[in-house]
Amino acid sequence: MLWFEENIHPEIRQVIRMDHRVYEGNTDFQSVQIFDNDLLGRVMVIDGAVQLTEFDEHIYSESLTHVAVMSHPTATRVLIIGGGDGTILREVVKHKDLESVTMVDLDGALVALCQEHFSSIQQGAYDDPRVNLIIGDGARFLLETDQLFDVIIIDSTDPDENSEGLFTDDFYASCKDRLAPGGILVAQAGCPAFQDSVVVHMRERMQAKFRFGGFYYAAVPTYIGGLHAFSWASDEHDLSQLAETGALEKRTKPVTRYYSARSHKAAFYLEP
Amino acid sequence: MLWFEENIHPEIRQVIRMDHRVYEGNTDFQSVQIFDNDLLGRVMVIDGAVQLTEFDEHIYSESLTHVAVMSHPTATRVLIIGGGDGTILREVVKHKDLESVTMVDLDGALVALCQEHFSSIQQGAYDDPRVNLIIGDGARFLLETDQLFDVIIIDSTDPDENSEGLFTDDFYASCKDRLAPGGILVAQAGCPAFQDSVVVHMRERMQAKFRFGGFYYAAVPTYIGGLHAFSWASDEHDLSQLAETGALEKRTKPVTRYYSARSHKAAFYLEP
Repeated sequence: MLWFEENIHPEIRQVIRMDHRVYEGNTDFQSVQIFDNDLLGRVMVIDGAVQLTEFDEHIYSESLTHVAVMSHPTATRVLIIGGGDGTILREVVKHKDLESVTMVDLDGALVALCQEHFSSIQQGAYDDPRVNLIIGDGARFLLETDQLFDVIIIDSTDPDENSEGLFTDDFYASCKDRLAPGGILVAQAGCPAFQDSVVVHMRERMQAKFRFGGFYYAAVPTYIGGLHAFSWASDEHDLSQLAETGALEKRTKPVTRYYSARSHKAAFYLEP
Repeated sequence: MLWFEENIHPEIRQVIRMDHRVYEGNTDFQSVQIFDNDLLGRVMVIDGAVQLTEFDEHIYSESLTHVAVMSHPTATRVLIIGGGDGTILREVVKHKDLESVTMVDLDGALVALCQEHFSSIQQGAYDDPRVNLIIGDGARFLLETDQLFDVIIIDSTDPDENSEGLFTDDFYASCKDRLAPGGILVAQAGCPAFQDSVVVHMRERMQAKFRFGGFYYAAVPTYIGGLHAFSWASDEHDLSQLAETGALEKRTKPVTRYYSARSHKAAFYLEP
């Protein structure tokens, strides 16, 4: 029997049985393992850290996407930075009011691997005619584009040599510059219980550039450490107050497995 | 380096570094391991399953205790079944309006071990003059006592040969019989993501005996599987609606680390 052992925390680890190995290799940027587990379904590991499992990726992808998009009253243009597995894209294109969805991922080989091995969970998202997929550096894209976006979603790995450009003051300044008035920025922010450096970084670097900012949370079983954090920021919308106004219930909710007006509220009521 | 490997799920495990071994042995009923981990503090394992860590036991104990006790408008008598580690007792005695707190645990040797090795987290709860500690079988106690209780808290292990008497129709009928009018019953209900048999059992056996019943949730990092479930039931109080009424904010909240009126609401908004 083969086991995958995740070593992202020195004191506590999770170990997942590899019931069927699907792919192991390296792209130009990162190492990738894809395997099947009888309980979790298909699992993808990047540089030794679990990125998604079929079992619970929807909790992460729906939380990162819909809390942000549903909080914007009139979003038509969404940008995804990262998100190579395609699950954020799948959630974004569920919003039929959107006119354009741009996705910029550094690693074209990873995007192709996921299109091959995770096509069933991508649900044809790349075929949506509103989607513009760009393989390249997200930070550079933001500097060079003249487009504006209503929602920018940063779906990065935790900080490492590939993603470090998505964790800088300059990058957050670029995001702010490319947000249309009323725009919302949201980013995955790691596990605060075991990894609070990312949370501190997000508060001091990303959120501090905006009038409003904070975190919301969801429990993703295979991201060990209890609650997973999402960092949000906006100059116009206080996402933490929105749930109290009843506005959410009036907006058109996409078909989801985890996300609901209630889970949206809970996400802001939770604290680790 | 020594590692503890938890084998409660066949497909996915957590592994915790044992930085300092404190105790390993057997009581008449169960095997007990107590060790320290640099991140998690002191850890207790019973029959191979993590029961508590200093790092996150408060999320579990505060959720199990305060959601139930705060939902009862006039509770004065609380019964704890199980709870040998003393953390539920610590939370219950924070409610100064209570007149009596009865705790019945099967395993006196475990209670003594925890008094020795977890005294710092028990915060003197056993010295509270309202506390009556009984070493014995909880199911039998309920059959024999003539006392009534406003809140009964079942803090058992997951179903096994020691606790199976706390997972029967007869036991739930005894709980109902010994609840005063307006009484509330609450029980830990395992991890629904990886262990949904306990959730199904609770719905069909425990909750079905009462007019109102359901689950609430909290994310306890070292109980792997994302959200941990708590089962509640009452003939008078619909706990799932209470949070909407504003009643919670008017009640006297004990000093807590995790529990709040917001976490209370979130517990009912979450679904796995």
